[in-house]
Amino acid sequence: MSMVVKRAPHRLGTHRVLEPSGAMPQNAWRLDNSPVAFENEIVCDVDVLNIDSASFKQIADHCGGDADAIGAHVLRTVRERGKQHNPVTGSGGMFIGRVREIGTALRARIDLAAGERIASLVSLTLTPLHVAHVKRVDVTTGRVWIEGHAVLFESGLWAKLPHDIDESVALAVFDVAGAPAQVRRLAQPGQSVVVIGADGKSGLLSCAQAKARVGSGGCVIGLIPDGNAPSARILREAGIVDHIVVADAQDALEMSEAVRAIAPDLADVVVNCVNVPNTELGSILCTKDRGTVYFFSMSTSFTAAALGAEGVGKDITMIVGNGYAKGHAQTALQTLRDHPRIHAYFHERYAPHTDASKGPQ
Amino acid sequence: MSMVVKRAPHRLGTHRVLEPSGAMPQNAWRLDNSPVAFENEIVCDVDVLNIDSASFKQIADHCGGDADAIGAHVLRTVRERGKQHNPVTGSGGMFIGRVREIGTALRARIDLAAGERIASLVSLTLTPLHVAHVKRVDVTTGRVWIEGHAVLFESGLWAKLPHDIDESVALAVFDVAGAPAQVRRLAQPGQSVVVIGADGKSGLLSCAQAKARVGSGGCVIGLIPDGNAPSARILREAGIVDHIVVADAQDALEMSEAVRAIAPDLADVVVNCVNVPNTELGSILCTKDRGTVYFFSMSTSFTAAALGAEGVGKDITMIVGNGYAKGHAQTALQTLRDHPRIHAYFHERYAPHTDASKGPQ
Repeated sequence: MSMVVKRAPHRLGTHRVLEPSGAMPQNAWRLDNSPVAFENEIVCDVDVLNIDSASFKQIADHCGGDADAIGAHVLRTVRERGKQHNPVTGSGGMFIGRVREIGTALRARIDLAAGERIASLVSLTLTPLHVAHVKRVDVTTGRVWIEGHAVLFESGLWAKLPHDIDESVALAVFDVAGAPAQVRRLAQPGQSVVVIGADGKSGLLSCAQAKARVGSGGCVIGLIPDGNAPSARILREAGIVDHIVVADAQDALEMSEAVRAIAPDLADVVVNCVNVPNTELGSILCTKDRGTVYFFSMSTSFTAAALGAEGVGKDITMIVGNGYAKGHAQTALQTLRDHPRIHAYFHERYAPHTDASKGPQ
Repeated sequence: MSMVVKRAPHRLGTHRVLEPSGAMPQNAWRLDNSPVAFENEIVCDVDVLNIDSASFKQIADHCGGDADAIGAHVLRTVRERGKQHNPVTGSGGMFIGRVREIGTALRARIDLAAGERIASLVSLTLTPLHVAHVKRVDVTTGRVWIEGHAVLFESGLWAKLPHDIDESVALAVFDVAGAPAQVRRLAQPGQSVVVIGADGKSGLLSCAQAKARVGSGGCVIGLIPDGNAPSARILREAGIVDHIVVADAQDALEMSEAVRAIAPDLADVVVNCVNVPNTELGSILCTKDRGTVYFFSMSTSFTAAALGAEGVGKDITMIVGNGYAKGHAQTALQTLRDHPRIHAYFHERYAPHTDASKGPQ
């Protein structure tokens, strides 16, 4: 006697969980990676996996940096788990592929068609994946070219790859697309905005959106650790900040006093984009009463932020950076189109060896 | 030749830092606890220290639970550091005392006079403290009666002790006062609000404020782990929720489906008040698109929240619970006055042996 278990398709993909039962796809040990779209799914032919950098480093170390061994390792993980979910680091990555099939219930509801090229914007740790074979591993970038397919759930995020921007550059900005999209919402005309870590990838895009929003009556202050770095020059030349402050973000007093010297009432909005710990208090001290801190940095400590604001008696709103906001990928790409200087810098940095035909005009 | 170093009084109290130089009062190893108010300080005669529970447990364990030994231990820490900052747990507590002196620059600007009784609402880890001697240690509550004095900086938070509410009850609600004050701001008339951990101290106060704000056209859903607990009865009897849902907050799907059964569009505002880990995803799934999650729980993981929302494609605002909001202590006390049933429950729980003359009418 055979028993057929029919699982109702769930928008979060729980119907693809094989074990343990009841888990969410991200917590699951193993997912069903069969290549047929449930009614609310998208199945893609995958070209490239962009393995998360922490995960790729662990795999590469384990394999002595050998490309073939790394490829075999990825193949083994995906065969065992039905997803590229590194059991040691717990992290995944994203994929680039071409849409093969869109489920019947989803087709009419999304602006996507079979044949289009997309990047997944959800982690590979929750994405059903099948790898037929590994074609090439680029040890320097953590990219793995494969033949295989992946499944996106109804809740899964994706973005169409643009025709006018290099794929590597697009991926680089998709990775931090939540930041500029949120800054666009938070900053209001005439306000003062401080961007901590203004010369990084998310920082540059955040400054551009902040300046566009606050306008000529507002003020954007970019905080950077080193005034002589190439990125500092871009910040100046792109016209996206009114002031550059060189300060140590971990020195709360020094940083906030430097901001106060420019904006005596402090900032309406502070955007924290630095990937070093212990910058919560500095961010809080740069913010005016009833202002907002947007913590985009994954190094943020929840308790340091919560107790820090109470300890200095600051009545401010502190927001956890959400990697997603509606339209975030398009906002990030548009920021590049609006700022050729930033686009050129990103191209040089993330796609140095590709031909410049997709570079900025 | 003698050198006098004159330190300018700073609103954050950096002028009281003795070592290491350049530290903030909380990071400092040792503070200057001399009992004279700088122009922007408040000096208090201290009656009671409420040692933070993690810190008190560590001290009590170290001292074999002996009250005299605990007293001597506290005395030693304060002599060495100029503050009751437990070097093992890193935590402090708060104090109750009477205002002795208010600095000249502060007097006219605050509604406080010498002689009034207050509770400090900032941590003892950043509060200059001198203990002349320890009078009594209550091993069950972690309270230490002393003769001594403490200093509050200009940025330091405090609250006058009310005449109509027992001191222990007032302290208990001051401890979580940030939650109801923030809920009061976030919830709007007609909205749906979910309070996770509705039967705890912060949960009950949050439900009361949520219900007052959303009104009869809105809906407050209280999520609790056990429908038979005494606190669940209070929740029902106080009339501060429209629905009670018994669910495991760590089971994201179960909890969110239970909420969806009551509020098909999910919640505008979710308030997380539970002190267990792994409830971030559940909170996120209960929230409608463009809604808000307020994480008051100190068990919140920043990365679990940030990556969780992205993983399920939720465009929501996630706020870090700030222990402070303007007027938060008064809002918390007023909540008790407005809800005699909650007040009676808190009295029974936090001041069971005191006379009831300060109990609710």
